[in-house]
Amino acid sequence: MARRIIIDTDPGQDDAVAILLALASPELEVLGITAVAGNVPLPLTSRNARIVCELAGRTDIPVFAGCDAPMTRKLVTAEHVHGKTGLDGPELPEPVMPLQERHAVDFLIETLRAEPAGSVTLCPLGPLTNIATAFRRAPDIVERVQQIVLMGGAYFEVGNYTPAAEFNIYVDPEAAAEVFGAGIPLVVMPLDVTHKALVTKPRNEAIRALGTPVGKAVAEMTDFFERFDLEKYGSEGAPLHDPCVTAYLLAPEIFSGRHINVEIETTSELTLGMTVADWWGVSGRAPNATFIGDLDADAFFTLLTERLAKL
Amino acid sequence: MARRIIIDTDPGQDDAVAILLALASPELEVLGITAVAGNVPLPLTSRNARIVCELAGRTDIPVFAGCDAPMTRKLVTAEHVHGKTGLDGPELPEPVMPLQERHAVDFLIETLRAEPAGSVTLCPLGPLTNIATAFRRAPDIVERVQQIVLMGGAYFEVGNYTPAAEFNIYVDPEAAAEVFGAGIPLVVMPLDVTHKALVTKPRNEAIRALGTPVGKAVAEMTDFFERFDLEKYGSEGAPLHDPCVTAYLLAPEIFSGRHINVEIETTSELTLGMTVADWWGVSGRAPNATFIGDLDADAFFTLLTERLAKL
Amino acid sequence: MARRIIIDTDPGQDDAVAILLALASPELEVLGITAVAGNVPLPLTSRNARIVCELAGRTDIPVFAGCDAPMTRKLVTAEHVHGKTGLDGPELPEPVMPLQERHAVDFLIETLRAEPAGSVTLCPLGPLTNIATAFRRAPDIVERVQQIVLMGGAYFEVGNYTPAAEFNIYVDPEAAAEVFGAGIPLVVMPLDVTHKALVTKPRNEAIRALGTPVGKAVAEMTDFFERFDLEKYGSEGAPLHDPCVTAYLLAPEIFSGRHINVEIETTSELTLGMTVADWWGVSGRAPNATFIGDLDADAFFTLLTERLAKL
Amino acid sequence: MARRIIIDTDPGQDDAVAILLALASPELEVLGITAVAGNVPLPLTSRNARIVCELAGRTDIPVFAGCDAPMTRKLVTAEHVHGKTGLDGPELPEPVMPLQERHAVDFLIETLRAEPAGSVTLCPLGPLTNIATAFRRAPDIVERVQQIVLMGGAYFEVGNYTPAAEFNIYVDPEAAAEVFGAGIPLVVMPLDVTHKALVTKPRNEAIRALGTPVGKAVAEMTDFFERFDLEKYGSEGAPLHDPCVTAYLLAPEIFSGRHINVEIETTSELTLGMTVADWWGVSGRAPNATFIGDLDADAFFTLLTERLAKL
Ligand SMILES: [Ca+2]
Ligand SMILES: [Ca+2]
Ligand SMILES: [Ca+2]
Ligand SMILES: [Ca+2]
Repeated sequence: MARRIIIDTDPGQDDAVAILLALASPELEVLGITAVAGNVPLPLTSRNARIVCELAGRTDIPVFAGCDAPMTRKLVTAEHVHGKTGLDGPELPEPVMPLQERHAVDFLIETLRAEPAGSVTLCPLGPLTNIATAFRRAPDIVERVQQIVLMGGAYFEVGNYTPAAEFNIYVDPEAAAEVFGAGIPLVVMPLDVTHKALVTKPRNEAIRALGTPVGKAVAEMTDFFERFDLEKYGSEGAPLHDPCVTAYLLAPEIFSGRHINVEIETTSELTLGMTVADWWGVSGRAPNATFIGDLDADAFFTLLTERLAKL
Repeated sequence: MARRIIIDTDPGQDDAVAILLALASPELEVLGITAVAGNVPLPLTSRNARIVCELAGRTDIPVFAGCDAPMTRKLVTAEHVHGKTGLDGPELPEPVMPLQERHAVDFLIETLRAEPAGSVTLCPLGPLTNIATAFRRAPDIVERVQQIVLMGGAYFEVGNYTPAAEFNIYVDPEAAAEVFGAGIPLVVMPLDVTHKALVTKPRNEAIRALGTPVGKAVAEMTDFFERFDLEKYGSEGAPLHDPCVTAYLLAPEIFSGRHINVEIETTSELTLGMTVADWWGVSGRAPNATFIGDLDADAFFTLLTERLAKL
Repeated sequence: MARRIIIDTDPGQDDAVAILLALASPELEVLGITAVAGNVPLPLTSRNARIVCELAGRTDIPVFAGCDAPMTRKLVTAEHVHGKTGLDGPELPEPVMPLQERHAVDFLIETLRAEPAGSVTLCPLGPLTNIATAFRRAPDIVERVQQIVLMGGAYFEVGNYTPAAEFNIYVDPEAAAEVFGAGIPLVVMPLDVTHKALVTKPRNEAIRALGTPVGKAVAEMTDFFERFDLEKYGSEGAPLHDPCVTAYLLAPEIFSGRHINVEIETTSELTLGMTVADWWGVSGRAPNATFIGDLDADAFFTLLTERLAKL
Repeated sequence: MARRIIIDTDPGQDDAVAILLALASPELEVLGITAVAGNVPLPLTSRNARIVCELAGRTDIPVFAGCDAPMTRKLVTAEHVHGKTGLDGPELPEPVMPLQERHAVDFLIETLRAEPAGSVTLCPLGPLTNIATAFRRAPDIVERVQQIVLMGGAYFEVGNYTPAAEFNIYVDPEAAAEVFGAGIPLVVMPLDVTHKALVTKPRNEAIRALGTPVGKAVAEMTDFFERFDLEKYGSEGAPLHDPCVTAYLLAPEIFSGRHINVEIETTSELTLGMTVADWWGVSGRAPNATFIGDLDADAFFTLLTERLAKL
């Protein structure tokens, strides 16, 4: 039986690839996609989520708009990375499929209550506002979550949006603190691992060579996306942050990490949104997350390319 | 035409009196009552709100359950003040009228969108979680609010729940920061004024002497409620915190205060939830609230007793 | 035998009166005066301390210059209250007596080590930088202090320099935290009491009527000093903050207060330097200070006037 | 002409090697050594500094005891790394040479005032308490400092004592904030570089093979010191943190880094003492430090071994 997941997302080119990878994989059943404000404002992320579903020919996937601002802070966005639309790169048509009427938070609450306890996994790919708001609104659902596998944070990479914080966590640190403190089995894909999932030229060309609309779109998204990291880090390609989440669900054996304590900084402006990961076990604090540090990048891209070929 | 209000509340004996005063006053139209976790947990506050409506014979008032925990913190409650049920004192029957199905936050959003802009006043009598969550979920409603008149905070009285903070603000300081920073016309009833609205023995006996079920219930609630303040402050009676909000809507001329800057402390554990009110104008920060400091207590109790007599 | 004290001070007109009251009182032996940056920068406070000694004819009192900036923050001063020199008002000659060569911190350390343990009382009238620096440099002296009686902080008056903080504590909150946490018997004269030590017109005229140079100078200092408070608070005279410390040493029975916990806010910018006094005993934290709340103002001014007459 | 330096230190085995390297190098004139509390309490660090001088046959170097506790916090120490004495490993005699009478802070102030402006470099190898206290006590000396080259902090290595902070900075973050904000030319040796100065087995054997008392002692210190890092990091030897400072003065060309903004976290308990280094230039804050990231480890050990051979 397929594993049932909800993807919570702020697309984002890498979110798009993560969604496509999920939709291409029979091991996963996507119950719904919930959009949240993050890389770009909510009207764009909820639009982009539908564009991606239509690109995959999956207009049956219900897409919900969620919170348009963090729990207690003003929204910051990342157009300098993702472009004005959040999905800059390929030319893709405006979506025809409608947004669902329900608020994403209501969908999360009602689905977790309706499905058997422990049968639904949450896959957050953006700020954790929708998830934390649902937990606050309906604490009874927390223990019904099977697992959370999320992209966010950093330890040895420290930060990207500020010197101390990764974007997803920085945008809504209070939401992150809620999720990291919820007591749910939690797997974290920090920059430490996602910066190793680099789309090198040959890897992108392999995807483009699929010759399909999906392959072309993904390659063009990466073309756009890599500009930022090439300039900043001098790396040999764009990091595919969010697809690490989907790949972990499909092939956890290609990832490695440590089960450790991870706390979220919410009080200091200087270090706001830092994921303080006790990688070396010096704090004495109890573990609450599996913090991934490495992946087999070749296996990851082989998996990704094979699956995208099916769409 | 009656002024249209929504009462957001965590009853609480003094909330009950504030609601009764509103229901007894033809100048006010109560569009709905939204319950929030505060003095006691949500199941009790949403129950107590309905008990109060039934006591007033107003089963037509829709009552909604809202957030059961603060935006980003664990709930703290005040049973040591209000008793186990939150409404200890009189013996009142379990409510028969049902809770509305909609979440209080949805009711707030939809009502503010449906009614003419600038025609609805919010009256928060507890932690500001419902209000702030609605503002976060639907920022477009903020400018549609006519005014907020709330009970919360303190300056010269400093704090009651901690040495630096009043209970309503302390419970959800992030929500308070959202509301105080929203740019809405705001009137604040802090402990500075509510500690002057003391139910002395003669005042309570005047209410009891109404001889009605409402008069009896209010007098018995006060009998219970005053125990705490008598012991702590040695004052001559219970402070009627929340009814100051309703009284202000009916007779603003019996209150006096200053239009000043009020900021909410959200970072320090020691001073968490403090309403830093710039009463002396030393900070240079722009005013954002009318902070009430005094009232004509005799006029207040005359008004209250006259109105309760009508129920 | 006279009680042996060290006055640590940032004169300041009210510091001047506090020093004069001490020098006029045979019950007190002033071992030295240590100047600190506060109301005005160190060169002025160390000058003013000597001016006051010379006014009292006590050029035998050793005066030491201490720290010219807080432990970890930039100095803020209060010329808007005390005038450009810190001692604006009377015309007084530049001092002839020299400053001591030793640093005030060294004097504090060496004196506390040289005198019998428990025989020296510290009387801080300004920011606590000198005292805390001495404690940090020489922790062995802490337990040799007999008592600290200081002017600083506020609870029901909350703040004067900011909405949440009194000047002396605000200037160097880290130093204050050190002193309040040192475990020394501590008596605090906050604004709550000093705002009740008001120099009304008749009281100031009684001092002026002494007809002595000291009486004249004190009256003229008060004339200058009261302008600020008249304008800000509309009070009927200047509050004599620092002399409350000296008066407490002479006549503790005219003061009343509570032995309670008092913590210093050092982390939040908004509430920085607040003395969080647990007046109502709600925190469960252990008492560490006698926090004075009231005085017999008539007795205070009678004492002050009688003693000033002797100089 | 030799470069004139003051070594401020909390020996510590690696401090010892840093001092020995300086004493062995004719390019450097050590004006004095100031001890501070850090790895072990002040009585031990001021003892150990003299042991090291005597080991080098340099009883002419004046050694001063300084602050025995951080500016505003309680001292924490690191006996779990350095052993009970701070210099565990070799058997070395108790020192005969006396401590200087003057306090280290006074020595720092007086030396910087006495020597030509811009002619003295400070080399802090421990918590920055002495340096910051001197700057606070005598702000005029700040601009007289030629350069500060210090060991402390981390960016990609993040922390060692806590998940977010390196020991030297964590012990006295307020002192660090003072020094990093002083506007002095500043070179920082963080864990990022010192963890690359690993004493591998062959490197340590080369030092032992010098056959001198110094070579033997250094090798035995490293034998002791490496136990901790071997166990924690699984690295191939002990990192020689503090000698990087001395080596930089002798051969800056074997180091590389970036001139960037580095801020110190002083407010949050979770991230206290973090050196927030803007390595990627994302903050827009002005550069204030040269933050070293890499070294030529072979060149470093060649230099070290050659110099130690001369003692
Ligand atoms: Ca994303
Ligand atoms: Ca209430
Ligand atoms: Ca003073
Ligand atoms: Ca060291």
